[in-house]
Amino acid sequence: MSSGIGSHAGGTALPARDVEIPVAVSARHVHLSARSVEALFGPGANLRVHTMLRQPGQFAAEQTVTLIGPKGRIEHVRVVGPPRSQDQVELSRSDELVLGIDAPLRESGHLDGTPGITLEGPAGGVTLDHGVVCSLRHLHLSPADAVALGLHDQQRISIHVAGERALTFDDLVVRVAPDYRMEVHLDTDEGNAAGIGPQGAFARIVKAGG
Amino acid sequence: MSSGIGSHAGGTALPARDVEIPVAVSARHVHLSARSVEALFGPGANLRVHTMLRQPGQFAAEQTVTLIGPKGRIEHVRVVGPPRSQDQVELSRSDELVLGIDAPLRESGHLDGTPGITLEGPAGGVTLDHGVVCSLRHLHLSPADAVALGLHDQQRISIHVAGERALTFDDLVVRVAPDYRMEVHLDTDEGNAAGIGPQGAFARIVKAGG
Repeated sequence: MSSGIGSHAGGTALPARDVEIPVAVSARHVHLSARSVEALFGPGANLRVHTMLRQPGQFAAEQTVTLIGPKGRIEHVRVVGPPRSQDQVELSRSDELVLGIDAPLRESGHLDGTPGITLEGPAGGVTLDHGVVCSLRHLHLSPADAVALGLHDQQRISIHVAGERALTFDDLVVRVAPDYRMEVHLDTDEGNAAGIGPQGAFARIVKAGG
Repeated sequence: MSSGIGSHAGGTALPARDVEIPVAVSARHVHLSARSVEALFGPGANLRVHTMLRQPGQFAAEQTVTLIGPKGRIEHVRVVGPPRSQDQVELSRSDELVLGIDAPLRESGHLDGTPGITLEGPAGGVTLDHGVVCSLRHLHLSPADAVALGLHDQQRISIHVAGERALTFDDLVVRVAPDYRMEVHLDTDEGNAAGIGPQGAFARIVKAGG
């Protein structure tokens, strides 16, 4: 796997539809503020790295929490580090049904008007009055890869995933930042619907909108 | 809702892509043989109608069972009647992960080489040595609607579902029989990935293959 587009293209921009883009399926997870890390895991606690993720600096932490909603609870939910300024819980629709929470489709960090939830850790609980979202499917790109692909931040594109459950996702939002690495993020419902197993998948861009 | 194509078209075949096709999202469910109905619910037990389904004669029964796999159990799983010649359990990939069962994508009734499972009812348990599938997405059509749409049994088509999670499913299999009524069937992962809520949705055919 190349780390970007440039090495495929030898410096020449490739037509976007010829590029194979790695797809990551994100299971339910939690981003925590430093304050919530201490409330859940004890004074002075830090997140410990379990697995580094493809997005630079991001990691699945060793720590997990229990999510508690009005209808049910889900245990062993992974914390993704490092800590952020805001607590954020990312669920699939299937998870929402288990918990009894109706969370809107949102980009990461866009938390106004989202529902709350209770988190439980080994050292205590935290009740959030907002912060639960169903993540809007998206493509992470570095600025250089965005130029190479002819795409820009906040653009909506359609991507095709091949396989025995082949499908095309519309309205995938492009997100460009210096610390991003080319990768499509789907939730588990989307990954399952596309037949993506533990080995991951690749997608191709089939349409790029405004 | 019209019961078929003819009433839209006044006898003239419509181009397939102009027809709005109702989409049903099938949650996990179980089809039982008459023998398994008695084993699970007691001697002489019959399935009782909870809700009639859109496919003629088919109904969600009042009865439910518990599914038990190597990794977990799922309670309150609906039985769909009437009884069939073979037991069949239809799961989503999300369900398979909970139960620890890896079931293949299959058309209904094609059960060779599928994994087994244990069912538990109020009167006893049944262990199946095969019969668990992940349902292959499909379109039910009556022979008259198939003619009107220019489609045939076993054809593969692509359908588009509009909405905030708009997408196009490829490789939907067309199934034509006299007792079928026009309806796309998806599983819950597929329905969630397409943003289909309890109110249901409509799909349009965007491609019809061989």
